[in-house]
Amino acid sequence: MSAIIIDGKKVAEEIRADAGLRVRALVDAGGAPRLDVVLCGDNAASGIYVRNKGRVAEQLGIRFTLHTPPADSTTAQLVALVRELSADDDVDAILVQLPLPGQVDQDQVIDALDPAKDADGFHPANFGRLAEGRAVTAAPSTPAGCMELLRRYDVPVRGARAVVVGRSTIVGRPMAVLLTNADATVTLCHSRTKDLSAVCREADVLVTAIGRPRMVDASFVKPGAAVIDVGITPIDGRVAGDVDRESVEPVAGWLTPVPGGVGPMTIAMLMQNTVTLAAARRHAAAA
Amino acid sequence: MSAIIIDGKKVAEEIRADAGLRVRALVDAGGAPRLDVVLCGDNAASGIYVRNKGRVAEQLGIRFTLHTPPADSTTAQLVALVRELSADDDVDAILVQLPLPGQVDQDQVIDALDPAKDADGFHPANFGRLAEGRAVTAAPSTPAGCMELLRRYDVPVRGARAVVVGRSTIVGRPMAVLLTNADATVTLCHSRTKDLSAVCREADVLVTAIGRPRMVDASFVKPGAAVIDVGITPIDGRVAGDVDRESVEPVAGWLTPVPGGVGPMTIAMLMQNTVTLAAARRHAAAA
Repeated sequence: MSAIIIDGKKVAEEIRADAGLRVRALVDAGGAPRLDVVLCGDNAASGIYVRNKGRVAEQLGIRFTLHTPPADSTTAQLVALVRELSADDDVDAILVQLPLPGQVDQDQVIDALDPAKDADGFHPANFGRLAEGRAVTAAPSTPAGCMELLRRYDVPVRGARAVVVGRSTIVGRPMAVLLTNADATVTLCHSRTKDLSAVCREADVLVTAIGRPRMVDASFVKPGAAVIDVGITPIDGRVAGDVDRESVEPVAGWLTPVPGGVGPMTIAMLMQNTVTLAAARRHAAAA
Repeated sequence: MSAIIIDGKKVAEEIRADAGLRVRALVDAGGAPRLDVVLCGDNAASGIYVRNKGRVAEQLGIRFTLHTPPADSTTAQLVALVRELSADDDVDAILVQLPLPGQVDQDQVIDALDPAKDADGFHPANFGRLAEGRAVTAAPSTPAGCMELLRRYDVPVRGARAVVVGRSTIVGRPMAVLLTNADATVTLCHSRTKDLSAVCREADVLVTAIGRPRMVDASFVKPGAAVIDVGITPIDGRVAGDVDRESVEPVAGWLTPVPGGVGPMTIAMLMQNTVTLAAARRHAAAA
């Protein structure tokens, strides 16, 4: 037996193509969606992510505006910028690229977002709706992308045991919520979890967002499980996932590769979210 | 071996006494806290809960105002009432007693709360902060009460496996979040969970919010586990918990009885939340 390799690149292409069609419909109806990104500081990975987001947005016909406040910006300055974009009627969606520099109170900046323009679903009002099991317009891109991969590959989720490793606001916590909302029985693990490999072996669906290259080997994986690798660690100009593919591939039922698994989905879902927020705003304005 | 029986009545008394002292300090500083409760419909249990809340509030010197809009109220009418109370500077804390009648969109009513007056922490902005692992002023009363019981009885939570049964917004979901934030490895179970008793047996801390009397017997309990029974089902004029005490008591390490376990904590934590919200408002007004 060998795992089915989940082709995130291909699924992401389909989602981008669909988003592109929806952009054209919005253009015909009066205006292209506009996504504004705030990039502050000199985090190299963030710079690459944002450049890729901009490239894809422009390919799809989404108007992309990048704001690069200086690395020594204060919380008040970033809050003012986010408030200004929130108030600008021309802006449909806003993404604050995380992490922000250490001197900035990230929570205050996120709180300043208009929840209706929250491209990544991190504003607490949106996160709270999601965590309460309500419908949201835009769910956090990376976990939403993981759910989409599970759906497209018909991985059984309802009633399955799912284990999520990592409790970040960006991946682990919303991932656990989305899996719970999809009727999985979810265990959320983190740095304090004891005997991690044994807990992971309970999983029919295992999602790792650890950031330690190749830490997850076959001893973490129940035979036939779906393994979704969200870990992306840059090494020597390439990226490595949390999963030791050579060890896990013979045991797992499904496996996302790194690169080409979850990574491309994050941008695709962000584009989908941008178009959905823009459509909702147009609809609200027309009503 | 026999479980330590957790005396929720006694702990609740201590919390109420502490809240009472804090009320007196606020009175000396200019005004007693005010809690407004909205009770709509003829749910018998809700009526009893609200009466008990009013009685305790008055004992502590909290001004208690009950609003009883007619059972056939529309969503718009309840939203208008909640908005009015939110705008009233004299009101410190608001509780919308759930469930609301079937014709009402409960989410819209909760969304109308001023998050700064949200006595039970159900507004999505507050729930989102909690779910993101941030500090909140008032956490949902029942799960906060369960955490307080665990703390007072020195039940090890950090690094422990915790299992929560039930994914309601009122109990199960916030309970899972609070346990995660306290560094437990949490599994959230629900109606779609397979082999529930086996999953529960993994728990060092087991919290049940099922509502099926005496369903949880010794086969659900790992020897020495703490069992927190949130289930309250009225039977023949008395209340029964989810736990079959006769079966579980010899196996568990700690056990909350019903009545006298979690029940009294819900009201005590609501009083604590009310005082905390009032103090925060006074503080904000003075700043």
